[in-house]
Amino acid sequence: MPAPVPDHGVIPPLCTPLTPGRELDVPSLERLTGFLLDAGVHGLFVTGSTGEVAYLTDDVRHRVLDVVTSVAAGQVPVLAGVVDTTTPRVIAQARAAQAHGADAVVATAPFYAPTAPVEFGTHFRAIRAAVDLPLVAYDIPGSVHAKLPAHTVAELAADGTLDGLKDSSGDLDGLRAVLELVDTTRFRVFTGSETMADVAVFLGAHGLVPGLGNVDPHGYLRLWNAASRGDWAEAATEQRRLRALFRMITVGGADLGPYASAIGAFKHALVARGILAHGTTSLPMHPLGEREQAEVRELLAAAGLSAIHG
Amino acid sequence: MPAPVPDHGVIPPLCTPLTPGRELDVPSLERLTGFLLDAGVHGLFVTGSTGEVAYLTDDVRHRVLDVVTSVAAGQVPVLAGVVDTTTPRVIAQARAAQAHGADAVVATAPFYAPTAPVEFGTHFRAIRAAVDLPLVAYDIPGSVHAKLPAHTVAELAADGTLDGLKDSSGDLDGLRAVLELVDTTRFRVFTGSETMADVAVFLGAHGLVPGLGNVDPHGYLRLWNAASRGDWAEAATEQRRLRALFRMITVGGADLGPYASAIGAFKHALVARGILAHGTTSLPMHPLGEREQAEVRELLAAAGLSAIHG
Amino acid sequence: MPAPVPDHGVIPPLCTPLTPGRELDVPSLERLTGFLLDAGVHGLFVTGSTGEVAYLTDDVRHRVLDVVTSVAAGQVPVLAGVVDTTTPRVIAQARAAQAHGADAVVATAPFYAPTAPVEFGTHFRAIRAAVDLPLVAYDIPGSVHAKLPAHTVAELAADGTLDGLKDSSGDLDGLRAVLELVDTTRFRVFTGSETMADVAVFLGAHGLVPGLGNVDPHGYLRLWNAASRGDWAEAATEQRRLRALFRMITVGGADLGPYASAIGAFKHALVARGILAHGTTSLPMHPLGEREQAEVRELLAAAGLSAIHG
Amino acid sequence: MPAPVPDHGVIPPLCTPLTPGRELDVPSLERLTGFLLDAGVHGLFVTGSTGEVAYLTDDVRHRVLDVVTSVAAGQVPVLAGVVDTTTPRVIAQARAAQAHGADAVVATAPFYAPTAPVEFGTHFRAIRAAVDLPLVAYDIPGSVHAKLPAHTVAELAADGTLDGLKDSSGDLDGLRAVLELVDTTRFRVFTGSETMADVAVFLGAHGLVPGLGNVDPHGYLRLWNAASRGDWAEAATEQRRLRALFRMITVGGADLGPYASAIGAFKHALVARGILAHGTTSLPMHPLGEREQAEVRELLAAAGLSAIHG
Repeated sequence: MPAPVPDHGVIPPLCTPLTPGRELDVPSLERLTGFLLDAGVHGLFVTGSTGEVAYLTDDVRHRVLDVVTSVAAGQVPVLAGVVDTTTPRVIAQARAAQAHGADAVVATAPFYAPTAPVEFGTHFRAIRAAVDLPLVAYDIPGSVHAKLPAHTVAELAADGTLDGLKDSSGDLDGLRAVLELVDTTRFRVFTGSETMADVAVFLGAHGLVPGLGNVDPHGYLRLWNAASRGDWAEAATEQRRLRALFRMITVGGADLGPYASAIGAFKHALVARGILAHGTTSLPMHPLGEREQAEVRELLAAAGLSAIHG
Repeated sequence: MPAPVPDHGVIPPLCTPLTPGRELDVPSLERLTGFLLDAGVHGLFVTGSTGEVAYLTDDVRHRVLDVVTSVAAGQVPVLAGVVDTTTPRVIAQARAAQAHGADAVVATAPFYAPTAPVEFGTHFRAIRAAVDLPLVAYDIPGSVHAKLPAHTVAELAADGTLDGLKDSSGDLDGLRAVLELVDTTRFRVFTGSETMADVAVFLGAHGLVPGLGNVDPHGYLRLWNAASRGDWAEAATEQRRLRALFRMITVGGADLGPYASAIGAFKHALVARGILAHGTTSLPMHPLGEREQAEVRELLAAAGLSAIHG
Repeated sequence: MPAPVPDHGVIPPLCTPLTPGRELDVPSLERLTGFLLDAGVHGLFVTGSTGEVAYLTDDVRHRVLDVVTSVAAGQVPVLAGVVDTTTPRVIAQARAAQAHGADAVVATAPFYAPTAPVEFGTHFRAIRAAVDLPLVAYDIPGSVHAKLPAHTVAELAADGTLDGLKDSSGDLDGLRAVLELVDTTRFRVFTGSETMADVAVFLGAHGLVPGLGNVDPHGYLRLWNAASRGDWAEAATEQRRLRALFRMITVGGADLGPYASAIGAFKHALVARGILAHGTTSLPMHPLGEREQAEVRELLAAAGLSAIHG
Repeated sequence: MPAPVPDHGVIPPLCTPLTPGRELDVPSLERLTGFLLDAGVHGLFVTGSTGEVAYLTDDVRHRVLDVVTSVAAGQVPVLAGVVDTTTPRVIAQARAAQAHGADAVVATAPFYAPTAPVEFGTHFRAIRAAVDLPLVAYDIPGSVHAKLPAHTVAELAADGTLDGLKDSSGDLDGLRAVLELVDTTRFRVFTGSETMADVAVFLGAHGLVPGLGNVDPHGYLRLWNAASRGDWAEAATEQRRLRALFRMITVGGADLGPYASAIGAFKHALVARGILAHGTTSLPMHPLGEREQAEVRELLAAAGLSAIHG
């Protein structure tokens, strides 16, 4: 049995900085990694949805992992999203992630081809058999158009296939069902929610993987610490501030689309904070305009966030 | 401007034969290619959805293309599905397809990450700029969860980005709208429908890309020929026989799931016809059972199809 | 066994004219009915979706039926939509429709409460048992969020529950499946499509129920007559003109919403043709603006339609 | 300004008892009302989704209201669901509810006809203008296929159109957004969730409207009381017991469908507890079988619930 995934805490899904020519911006990625480690995060999650994994060629995915594991240098575990359409391609991604130093892999249900429920178990068991790393299921129905049922997660937890769950479904009822069904002495449940993180911890979740944690890791750490000691009022106060900050994801409006708007906002916020050199996103996403970038800066100011001077 | 995609006719989306150990079964793929060429098809489409493209590693995709282009030897054009999540990854797939001999590439809208309409044009224009091959848009909302609007296709046809459309949307009204909007002296529209192929030709479609065409290419060629000469009654009679044969895609029922059932049925039908050595499908699809395989054989017999010798 | 529904032809779903104060505009409804009868339609369908059935109180529904049956005076059958959420309420609507002179009733699958497939048969059989009128199933998944499967329709046709189907699903493949399965010597299949009416007849449909038939009944009668004699080219030419005219349904754009835009456009077109006194629609639909009304008039002119005198 | 809706607490959505012949079972409804009042509920909600509102004719809806208001006799407010397709029909329902003694009305967004966002405000403002009773918006996207946006609710709260929200959307993030935006000194927010009621109170919700509250009102009152005093651990313990009990809604499985299964289970549980005479549900729902009824009784026993002796 491989070593467990991070036991608890804040594990931000790192943005993938790009140059204006859309090459990997290594110095910015190193700064971002250092910024998060300095803040005290408990783990790092690379090539997740926030990291534009669906937009990165295999080569860029591998270099991201090389850079982040190099900077992290074993201080905290580095989890890698191994996002691809179906089992054979996910296995190939997972083997490459292991070769490039990942401490655990995070895999979604199959997508593109319609999937039957009976295939979920077969999929994760085949990945489990192929790669000698902890395996975290990534439940993200907004992207893969299928929800992992709680009883399936529980069954795959019980037989040792899965070591954890990253829940980006927004379904807190389902999250609670998983937590009622699994053995939480060894299985770990993380929420991908930026806006209901306090509730997820209240329900028993072990950690947070918020995209907004790139921008304000200190905020999520304060929330985590308050919630961990049962100070729900304090956690909710911090959550409320972070909910207001999170409104940045809609600055682009309907025309730009939800994803271009959200990733663009996170990256421009990181530019404003002095961590990324550029706010560039991958094709075919369109960039934020000047007005939208200004709105991001206003939301940062309203949340009390300023530039980092390193 | 690159040479046009196939002008018209039947262009089956080839199944990808696998050994029981789920390796590429090259002799079976060669037999299948030869069978289709002997039948008189007008083109070959590899690594499409029927070809389990979402289940094939890059290496297998390339070898499929190597085998099929080698057997085809220029007799008919070979189109390659370059299916991946977003623009940078599709471009990488398209460049590899060109290197492995594809005559044209077929690309879907982005998937996994939610896509805004404004991104469709950006996506296809970037692919067009990156690869010196005819580009066919692959409209398959059942897989990518977005429909290409007719006016977007028309705009990308008019500016030379797209050379054709493969419509697997099932939306015949939308197909008709495209045909009303594009310049059909140079733009080509193909339907992916097995069951409404005669109607698609009635509406002006230039060709057929039916998954069931692996199993019964002669049937689709007869349908095509009848429709091409305006003999709609004859085309409808052939279509009716093929509609009954197509019921094989549901032999697996709800438990097996639609995709495992359909691909499994096509492959077992090709085994029964003596063309494929094995009915194996990719993980995580579950196999057809004995009863389902027998139902496939019964449907073949009812449609008057027997094994091919020689 | 009650008398059959209309054997074939064009059966427009009548708009429900309203005064500016949103009362039933009886003189306009009488004019509309007379206009359609003069054109030569084969039946009249009141309180359908185009007739704003979901917006009409029971009392207004009944008065519409009174007015139209009175003007029709037995010249052609009058079908009544008996649209309500579930079986007991639909039965109440159907009994009232019978009392107010309907020659047949048209009922959807249940809606609001999620419905299981097993309930479709129970629903239609209970209506059949309660009302001594021909019963037509109204397949409109865009409104009721469930599709009637072809095999269910066929089963209910075979046992005498259903006398016909009005297919407003847009699923021509499913329409064809129904036509393959039912006994068309007694069961009648009508399409609700404005834009694929020629194809529906090509597939064997017995009649057309196009909302746009309020505006241009003569066009749909020409299409029907051409298609009935197998002159598909002539039918397609007429269909193409009607497809262009049908663009009026989008004049309101995304803000107004699809339904307010379509019903508003039909009503303003009827005002422009001199048949309705007002273009008023029901609450909560917002009205077309001046610019949108002008666009409707331009589309009428482009289609060669002018005002009717006397 | 009319008097406010219930200030806080547990307001069960009453089941509508039927005789085996599917007539309203008045004695059972009187017993159920008395049972809930004796338990100490803070309000009663009739003709909601749990009350099979979509299956009740207008006459039965009115008699339900007559019976319940008569038994309640002013001890607690009685809210009435005025569920119908669009504004004119909802207004008619609301006026009738007022005439039959309702203290407040609860209305959904329009359904059947597709609705544009701009129509939400028009819809609720027209109801507000037509009926002199407090108005609660009923957010139930599973039935009406549209979600009320938080900003729309907030706008309609601020201008006095709405007095409260019953949130049956399952979207706790959206519930939190509403609570952040409205003036909670006068606007009331109730959750329809059976399984996340403690979390809803944690987020600031003022009350609970759980269908399962018919079966175990005492449990929801204990949960409410614990949560109200900030004893989240105690509330979560009670919630956990109620979550297990709530599994009864799936006893019917996929064949029976979710709604027939849930309503059938609630009613059979109330039979087992000695409150209802029959477990009969409305057409076209199919009944629970013997095995499913036994499972309901086992879940009651496991939750420590026995028959009431009155």
